[in-house]
Amino acid sequence: MNSKIPPLSASEINHINAYWRACNYLAAGMIYLRDNPLLKEPLKLEHIKNRLLGHWGSSPGLSFGYIHMNRLIVKYDLNAIFMAGPGHGAPGVLGPVYLEGRYSEVYPNKGENIDGMRQFFKEFSFPGGIGSHCTPETPGSIHEGGELGYSVSHAFGAAFDNPDLIVTVMVGDGESETAPLATSWHSNKFLNPIRDGAVLPILHLNGYKINNPTILSRISHEELENLFKGYGWTPYFVEGSDPETMHQRMAQVMEECVLEIRRIQTEARESGIPARPRWPMIVLRSPKGWTGPAEVDGKKMEGFWRSHQVPIGDVKTPEHFAKLEEWLSSYKIDELFDENGKLLPELKALAPKGIRRMSANLHANGGLLRRALHMPNCRDYAVEVKNPGTTVAENTRPLGKFLRDIMQANMQNFRVFGPDENSSNKLDNIYEVSKKTWLADYLPEDAGGGELSPDGRVMEMLSEHTLEGWLEGYLLSGRHGFFSTYEAFVHVIDSMFNQHAKWLAMSKDVPWRAPVSSLNLLITSTVWRQDHNGFTHQDPGFLDLVVNKSPEVTRIYLPPDVNCLLSVADHCLKSTDYINVIVCDKQKHLQFLNMEAAILHCTKGIGIWDWACNDQGSEPDVVMASAGDIPTKEALAAVMLLREHFPDLKIRFINVVDLYKLTPSTEHPHGLSDRDFDSLFTKDRPVMFNFHGYPWLIHRLAYRRHNHQNFHVRGYKEKGSINTPLELAIQNQIDRFSLVIDIIDRLPALQVSGAHIKEKMLNKQIECRNYAYAHGIDLPEVDNWTWTL
Amino acid sequence: MNSKIPPLSASEINHINAYWRACNYLAAGMIYLRDNPLLKEPLKLEHIKNRLLGHWGSSPGLSFGYIHMNRLIVKYDLNAIFMAGPGHGAPGVLGPVYLEGRYSEVYPNKGENIDGMRQFFKEFSFPGGIGSHCTPETPGSIHEGGELGYSVSHAFGAAFDNPDLIVTVMVGDGESETAPLATSWHSNKFLNPIRDGAVLPILHLNGYKINNPTILSRISHEELENLFKGYGWTPYFVEGSDPETMHQRMAQVMEECVLEIRRIQTEARESGIPARPRWPMIVLRSPKGWTGPAEVDGKKMEGFWRSHQVPIGDVKTPEHFAKLEEWLSSYKIDELFDENGKLLPELKALAPKGIRRMSANLHANGGLLRRALHMPNCRDYAVEVKNPGTTVAENTRPLGKFLRDIMQANMQNFRVFGPDENSSNKLDNIYEVSKKTWLADYLPEDAGGGELSPDGRVMEMLSEHTLEGWLEGYLLSGRHGFFSTYEAFVHVIDSMFNQHAKWLAMSKDVPWRAPVSSLNLLITSTVWRQDHNGFTHQDPGFLDLVVNKSPEVTRIYLPPDVNCLLSVADHCLKSTDYINVIVCDKQKHLQFLNMEAAILHCTKGIGIWDWACNDQGSEPDVVMASAGDIPTKEALAAVMLLREHFPDLKIRFINVVDLYKLTPSTEHPHGLSDRDFDSLFTKDRPVMFNFHGYPWLIHRLAYRRHNHQNFHVRGYKEKGSINTPLELAIQNQIDRFSLVIDIIDRLPALQVSGAHIKEKMLNKQIECRNYAYAHGIDLPEVDNWTWTL
Repeated sequence: MNSKIPPLSASEINHINAYWRACNYLAAGMIYLRDNPLLKEPLKLEHIKNRLLGHWGSSPGLSFGYIHMNRLIVKYDLNAIFMAGPGHGAPGVLGPVYLEGRYSEVYPNKGENIDGMRQFFKEFSFPGGIGSHCTPETPGSIHEGGELGYSVSHAFGAAFDNPDLIVTVMVGDGESETAPLATSWHSNKFLNPIRDGAVLPILHLNGYKINNPTILSRISHEELENLFKGYGWTPYFVEGSDPETMHQRMAQVMEECVLEIRRIQTEARESGIPARPRWPMIVLRSPKGWTGPAEVDGKKMEGFWRSHQVPIGDVKTPEHFAKLEEWLSSYKIDELFDENGKLLPELKALAPKGIRRMSANLHANGGLLRRALHMPNCRDYAVEVKNPGTTVAENTRPLGKFLRDIMQANMQNFRVFGPDENSSNKLDNIYEVSKKTWLADYLPEDAGGGELSPDGRVMEMLSEHTLEGWLEGYLLSGRHGFFSTYEAFVHVIDSMFNQHAKWLAMSKDVPWRAPVSSLNLLITSTVWRQDHNGFTHQDPGFLDLVVNKSPEVTRIYLPPDVNCLLSVADHCLKSTDYINVIVCDKQKHLQFLNMEAAILHCTKGIGIWDWACNDQGSEPDVVMASAGDIPTKEALAAVMLLREHFPDLKIRFINVVDLYKLTPSTEHPHGLSDRDFDSLFTKDRPVMFNFHGYPWLIHRLAYRRHNHQNFHVRGYKEKGSINTPLELAIQNQIDRFSLVIDIIDRLPALQVSGAHIKEKMLNKQIECRNYAYAHGIDLPEVDNWTWTL
Repeated sequence: MNSKIPPLSASEINHINAYWRACNYLAAGMIYLRDNPLLKEPLKLEHIKNRLLGHWGSSPGLSFGYIHMNRLIVKYDLNAIFMAGPGHGAPGVLGPVYLEGRYSEVYPNKGENIDGMRQFFKEFSFPGGIGSHCTPETPGSIHEGGELGYSVSHAFGAAFDNPDLIVTVMVGDGESETAPLATSWHSNKFLNPIRDGAVLPILHLNGYKINNPTILSRISHEELENLFKGYGWTPYFVEGSDPETMHQRMAQVMEECVLEIRRIQTEARESGIPARPRWPMIVLRSPKGWTGPAEVDGKKMEGFWRSHQVPIGDVKTPEHFAKLEEWLSSYKIDELFDENGKLLPELKALAPKGIRRMSANLHANGGLLRRALHMPNCRDYAVEVKNPGTTVAENTRPLGKFLRDIMQANMQNFRVFGPDENSSNKLDNIYEVSKKTWLADYLPEDAGGGELSPDGRVMEMLSEHTLEGWLEGYLLSGRHGFFSTYEAFVHVIDSMFNQHAKWLAMSKDVPWRAPVSSLNLLITSTVWRQDHNGFTHQDPGFLDLVVNKSPEVTRIYLPPDVNCLLSVADHCLKSTDYINVIVCDKQKHLQFLNMEAAILHCTKGIGIWDWACNDQGSEPDVVMASAGDIPTKEALAAVMLLREHFPDLKIRFINVVDLYKLTPSTEHPHGLSDRDFDSLFTKDRPVMFNFHGYPWLIHRLAYRRHNHQNFHVRGYKEKGSINTPLELAIQNQIDRFSLVIDIIDRLPALQVSGAHIKEKMLNKQIECRNYAYAHGIDLPEVDNWTWTL
């Protein structure tokens, strides 16, 4: 222990404990009371809510951490925010937020008075009221904690590029068992003490989850210490249950941690050497449901899992009622609040003021700090396309150059994220201006192509969870980012996507929250190009998940080529409050549109490609549509085959970039009106739709359309193994030959004349397969096919 | 180091190194050669594959671990299997599998001779050939390793209840960064040394991922040692690159680990005290791409990330070609194989024999060991239902009793899994016969309701990833299990579900793999009963993911009540090779069917509930359909309202348990024929479908049906916050009043007479909301509604 830190005086301890009692009373009040908030009259049944909802267990520990950070904010004028890993303990956060006045500023009907407190209590976990987790409505929260596991990665995301910020993050010991949390401790190898702020984790060992002890609370002190030292932290322990002792100890330890953070930062910043320090972290071992009833019905309550939610459930029995009354009275609130329900001035003085309050810190309402990116002109990265479908290029490489120059122009508020795959995903031009962040050890060979640097702004760790968590924290605190990942493994973060989409959707209804940058997710290394990995790497189903979430926040783009990808990325990086999902493969693909045409096409989101149509001025016999790079190539090849073999057939070709165009305009803001939809797809002609993903998604989006019954959709249907790309297409019937056969089958006029063409197509498929099985590669004439009409 | 272990003699080292050279040659040969497998003639371009696919980097390390385990299997007659965390290094596994003769037994066209070796090389990563990961086609594999992160949890799953088994698991250092892997090290707190086998992890620090160093290879030795001690292991280090030294060291260390495992087991088994030992694990630090080319094009290759896949890419240049030739020659295979391509007898002698070979161990083809469960009669757990829709019960509680008695009757090959939620999910009767497995520390208060025991068979850890991994490993090694989890957070394991479904689908095509028990997943604490958690806990979208996977392996059930849940669970627990997803809430719900009716209904999977219909003997005016507990209750209430207000309206009521019944029979084996479907849903009458999940899933399944255009589906549409259950239903329009309004809107005959009923329904909704907002609970008359017609 640092001997230079003076212990708290008895009076200071009394004050801080009084403040904490107020927090704990508020937490209990929120769970139980709908009236009589100051207990001015004897407690009656009618003061108690009909439904008792909320989580008491972790609340006292959360407010304990919160107010001890408050003390240091005041003492050292710190710039700090607070994250509650176990967000279900919201009463432990809402209490201090209310006490420091922020809640009342934002929600004037919950003022710092009796009426306000009554309303505050009543609305908690009440229909139409205050959520039971640290929802977007919670001032100071950028981490709801509804799903556990992301607190540490969110905290790091907020700390990056905020050199003065300290992110205090309480980590639940239940949460610490989750997979995402367990690896996120390694985030300390990606934090630069010169450029970034600090994260101060407080592992809250309150011993229990819902019904079980937690692992980390039931291993030896030595193991626990080893574990955190092994993770690269310096653990400090605060353990006990006596409030006064614990306040003294926590005050000392937390102050030492803050001073250690300052020392590390000063040393790094003065020396200019960004070595990896062993940052401090705190292990707070305190009873679950601390200060709650010790026993209920003769069963252990405080310090046991039973106190996880509502310690005294049925309050209609006299004993239970008496126990509740005794418990609430134990906080002696007449010593804490004046008769109007306002916290006494000497306690009020303990909290920070203005935007130094963690509930009012701008970093926790990052949209207020957000500055738009300085964007280079995406046109400058275009590939030349003289004639559609005649040249090939790697679709993602020019995007890498675009991202490089965006990075160059925004070296303080933009980062690029990817799980060890930015090179694999052909975005490596970005390293020309910013390398990969790396604070772990270096070896001599790193000079030969490692692209590592403590100053790097490209975040690579083989944990999609951690990357997504960092990115969310970075965005919610007002910055910008871009995340690329393998298509099949974006499912690793399905649940994080769900939660972030819900956060954004709810935030839109919170008037004081400013819009934050969209989360931009490039899904690449797609299903159709997994030759060397096979079946496990084939899953285009993330989109099926995306469409379940609010249309207010979800966007899906399938740019068919380089220039469209550039245009889409340009749009997405300028947008706010969305999750933009972009699907585009990294390999060499046929190019279709020059830059101006691409911008026009992407702005519309869907359109007829005239050069591929021969239905000019008339209704087509058939509509060929596509979404995605490979499906577009195959669909165009099918059009060429059809026009060769059936020159009189009128074919319209439609490409879809913005997938939600297919949805009715009543269901998604991007949806086409029925009239526009019909004018593209007709009301009655057969539509052959070649899709990147699972085929039924198109049906799901378009099933309310007039012509839906004539939609015939091809896509991936779980037919894969070690194949060549063409063979994979054939097995899933998205190849040109299958499409021609499909159309012949669906057009009565072609039944007779088409019979031998069908046979020809089938033979061609066999030829392709035989060639692949003999040579291990695709038939060159098919593989290298280009548009020649 | 244990001084009793004699070092290997020079001759032993020579032999083991020769065997390893053979492995490494085979790995290189698989990646490069399509002919001239024994290099009997000078290498020519035409001997080399056109596409070079595969991962060389981790292969030598994998085979190094494999053959050192072989040595100990032979020496101590061990019963062991092998898992390759980085399954993309399959060449490092396939090599030893081929050398010990197992590959040729299973695939006779890949015999132990020149032709067989040629075929083995050629087909690797070749169209229609051998997968590039440790796919189900790989003898001895129950862990594909296509997606990283699950090796350790799979290993523990296989070790549970197999006291003699040692599961050797190589963990990639890239893999070790993933979230699931990071927390799975804690599995050692759930392994009982008396009853369970052992897991011997070998963390393979080969330093690099695709393009980056790995975190664990770039922290200090001290940190690394602390980390694993903190995780509760005793780490042993084998570090270096000189093969001879490394063989000596690995042999010593691995033998010491095996002896330590034996010592721990003997001590625990003789004393009967199942304390938690600090199991040994090995850190193997060896160069990536070990024994491969040191440099290519003047750039570091061996021991660097560049050797991750194919070390020498373009072999058409003379230098590259020469380098490849030099590399392949370096293994001196004429010293290893006879002229016919068979491994020399003195090397052959190093491998275990028969089923002691890890490639032939029955535990890695668990279906062969699987014994059907002894099943009590599910009828014995039925709740009495005299009249449909008149009593309530907690849907999951009788299931808990059923599971308890299944457990009782199968105490060696059945386990129940849940993330700290079996009590919360009302399955706690199970603890009467088996408590929760717990090998971490105990406290006195555990006696008061902890339900913990080292002998427990209920697996609870707050990591869905680890549970799913354990369960998969347990099932694939021939046992049975049941996993229940919160609906919203089943998305945490989306990607694991995807991978397991792919494994099962591919396994069905592998004739020598015996069927394994189905993975039974109960999704509970559902969207409609999340009053105290709110929006973050509402997501019924897992089913949308399930339907993307092969219909051969996926099943979905939505039992509407207790007895249906029992019948469904009974069926699922007897089945093999499926993933059975069961959706049923844990709270009190209305009961509809007595046990016999339930069995009949569930066996059919879909059916008309006559007692709720008044269309007997005629075509209905409208069909009301439902799937799921709450939607069924609301749909029935709507039927009652309709019959009250429109007595002449002919209504048919259909309940769906087996969701795939809606799919065409051509697309899923459970699908109804069109004729049967039409006879239920009619060809032209309006169908009102009240669904548990997102509504569009019903459209997706039924869009090819004749009457699909008349389907009107209600379900969850992301409208949630802190609501009462009824208010949540109203917001999402699955409530009875909305359904009545929907039907009035869709039946022209009701337009006039229905106008005032619509108004009445709307007023009722307002009344419900007002009541909820005033009292915090639902209007009792609606909440406690029962069927009275």
